[in-house]
Amino acid sequence: MPDRLKRSLPTAILSLAFLSSTSVFSQEIEKNIKSIFDEALTNNSAWDNLTFLCKKTKGRIDGSPAAAAAVEFTRQALLKAGADTVWLQPVMVPRWERGYEECRITSAGQGSENLAISALGLSDGTTDQGITAKVIEVHNFDELKTLGRKQVEGKIVFFNRPADNTLINSFAGYGGSVSQRTQGPSEASKLGAVAVVVRSATQAMDNFPHTGVTHFEDNVKKIPAVAVSTKGAELLSSWLKADPSLTMHLISECRTFPDTWSFNVIGEIRGSEKPNEYITAGGHLDAWDTGEGAHDDGGGCVQAIEMIRLLKTLGIKPRHSVRAVMFMNEEISGTGGRAYAAEARKKGEIHYAAIESDRGVTSPRGFGFDADSTRLTKLQGLSKYFAPYNIRDFDRGGGGSDISPLKALGALQIGYIPDIQRYFWYHHSANDTLEQVNERELQLGSASITALVYLLDLFEL
Amino acid sequence: MPDRLKRSLPTAILSLAFLSSTSVFSQEIEKNIKSIFDEALTNNSAWDNLTFLCKKTKGRIDGSPAAAAAVEFTRQALLKAGADTVWLQPVMVPRWERGYEECRITSAGQGSENLAISALGLSDGTTDQGITAKVIEVHNFDELKTLGRKQVEGKIVFFNRPADNTLINSFAGYGGSVSQRTQGPSEASKLGAVAVVVRSATQAMDNFPHTGVTHFEDNVKKIPAVAVSTKGAELLSSWLKADPSLTMHLISECRTFPDTWSFNVIGEIRGSEKPNEYITAGGHLDAWDTGEGAHDDGGGCVQAIEMIRLLKTLGIKPRHSVRAVMFMNEEISGTGGRAYAAEARKKGEIHYAAIESDRGVTSPRGFGFDADSTRLTKLQGLSKYFAPYNIRDFDRGGGGSDISPLKALGALQIGYIPDIQRYFWYHHSANDTLEQVNERELQLGSASITALVYLLDLFEL
Repeated sequence: MPDRLKRSLPTAILSLAFLSSTSVFSQEIEKNIKSIFDEALTNNSAWDNLTFLCKKTKGRIDGSPAAAAAVEFTRQALLKAGADTVWLQPVMVPRWERGYEECRITSAGQGSENLAISALGLSDGTTDQGITAKVIEVHNFDELKTLGRKQVEGKIVFFNRPADNTLINSFAGYGGSVSQRTQGPSEASKLGAVAVVVRSATQAMDNFPHTGVTHFEDNVKKIPAVAVSTKGAELLSSWLKADPSLTMHLISECRTFPDTWSFNVIGEIRGSEKPNEYITAGGHLDAWDTGEGAHDDGGGCVQAIEMIRLLKTLGIKPRHSVRAVMFMNEEISGTGGRAYAAEARKKGEIHYAAIESDRGVTSPRGFGFDADSTRLTKLQGLSKYFAPYNIRDFDRGGGGSDISPLKALGALQIGYIPDIQRYFWYHHSANDTLEQVNERELQLGSASITALVYLLDLFEL
Repeated sequence: MPDRLKRSLPTAILSLAFLSSTSVFSQEIEKNIKSIFDEALTNNSAWDNLTFLCKKTKGRIDGSPAAAAAVEFTRQALLKAGADTVWLQPVMVPRWERGYEECRITSAGQGSENLAISALGLSDGTTDQGITAKVIEVHNFDELKTLGRKQVEGKIVFFNRPADNTLINSFAGYGGSVSQRTQGPSEASKLGAVAVVVRSATQAMDNFPHTGVTHFEDNVKKIPAVAVSTKGAELLSSWLKADPSLTMHLISECRTFPDTWSFNVIGEIRGSEKPNEYITAGGHLDAWDTGEGAHDDGGGCVQAIEMIRLLKTLGIKPRHSVRAVMFMNEEISGTGGRAYAAEARKKGEIHYAAIESDRGVTSPRGFGFDADSTRLTKLQGLSKYFAPYNIRDFDRGGGGSDISPLKALGALQIGYIPDIQRYFWYHHSANDTLEQVNERELQLGSASITALVYLLDLFEL
């Protein structure tokens, strides 16, 4: 498709107003975007890459052999996609490893029951004998503090605040319940708790425990901490109502090892006019060990690789340099995102815009922009190019934790927004598998991200 | 929530302009709609009903014992949901039954391979010995006619036109390929073909054959006709390229029996002011025998039942009569939709609006209205009430085949539009199971439909 906008883009910075008034330009842009969608929707590369990540690098938590395999696989995939340059960027990552896990509750009146659990990242382990203690249920930190050390000491604290399913923004529902996972173990430890069990942060009512990282404040003793499924939490709560003296036997043989080296994986198409100005799209390569990391965030990674392939295959030569970035260690301590930004700063790179896809790879709805009203209005002017694809949401919003360190370098933060209603059914659980991804929805996302990169490259908004 | 709009709605017909200017009214409406969403999102009734339909009435094709079970189950579910009246409306339905199926291709050079197939509804069966014949591949009826009787007679015709995956409207992609299923067998039979194999009408590339009805013209000999999966179609096509003389052995022991009685299932809330004017919401109860009929269309049925439950639970008393209608026999010959409209006409019922949910039960995007510009603009005025739920698409569109006979009675035709990108992964195949439905997406759909019924009842647009 040798048209003018593909072969060589205008050297002058093109204003949106100018281009909008130039119908020939508009038509060429529309044609190029259609070619991006057509190619994405009729090619299996992204799906094949995701299949490999899910089925051959399952459990690619930081510092694991599977994560190393994922680094090497995506390096090769970026070369195959046609990137001009592909390299690995060293990143120090934590190394925490899950062990044998068991949770059994025993009540005089009701017998015994096993609960499916999943240790929280960076939590402390038990011995292989585990611990046995009474359980005390709370729903928030105020309740915990009111109970005080006297009632908490020596017990297992059970945080049981559900996500609010009436919040239409499922991330807000998640956000309202997740603090008990991220800070709950630390808060409970301060009052002498011997362990923590946290209700999974999800709108789903099922048997999957959803893990995630927990953070202990400095000088707070690390204790064992595990997530229990929502159904498990309901059961535990009902047993506690019947018998507040029930005991829990908990084994979680996870261990923390010294930090080790891993890598961000970066593939670049060199810009034809502004090679030192960058537009990036990416996701994170690490994933929780219990699932396949399909939606979180293998999908975001393969969409970025596909962006490179689409631009190269269609002969679209960007003026700015365009990078696909697979960040390492989003899930535990974010060193990948910080390492990327630090090197960019050191090299004096100008980062113009960064897109993150880390909300699952369901059907596209639009993008969220971290921009003031004036700039947002300009960016919303691009939405007309997405209307034929039924992508309508161009709103204020954030990018994500991997690209947020680039904000200080002036990069426009952009979040890819798919339909988020079912995301937390999968998030951080064994249910995050390839089978929960639809190929066409993944493809539409790749095309959307590529189209936005193409437009940002063209318009410089 | 005893507020004015719920307890007793204004007797005067309220114009949208009037209400819009009355902020108290608007706020009460918004509050009621929020209560509809809140209740839908925190209750499992619809999911439980869908679970029963999928797991206990699987295979509920017209005239089957499973269909009879689905009729009785939904009758009870409507009573439980609180409908004032629930009844069965007799409908004559065809009775076609799948039998043993086998398809094996044999080539001198390449050996033998079995293909997964699924007989088309109303197709003719083979004997238990099956038939063996050469295969000729075509992509459309022109190609078939060009080949002519000389090359077609005695052969099995293989229609291999794929869906166009570049069409963003997945129904258009489906629509472009499905005529080879609906009319292909009849056209091939006219030229003396002994059987037909049709590529599945889907954007998916997988191993599921997707069935569906086929129609033989009067005086055309019925012949065996089966769908093959898209992967099977690709394989068959590649084998034919290598060996145009390969043979296919086909067994399809399906049979057609005399028509029998079944029922539409109807639940009604009597209108407080205009009891003889109706708003309906519904789906179809019959489903292809190979799957569970989760997306097509158990989901649409349980959303309509849930609409009754939501209105009753929240104490919303509609002025018009509101009906949930589960139509029988949408898949084969549409007698349910016609029987419903015929009785409505006979009784002099005024049907004001009819909503059909038969595009899967994924995340809601909006509604399609079969209305002229003036009316559409008025209806689009309602979209502001859906904005908080990220439901933005209020466009021109159609309802569906079950409610189309009501158009002659003046009923506004409305289609519920969820995100349709992955629908044809499930449609008419063994992959249409409960596991492919997300509870929250189903709930959001129930709430959307109920909110629209509530608004139409209020505004009379």
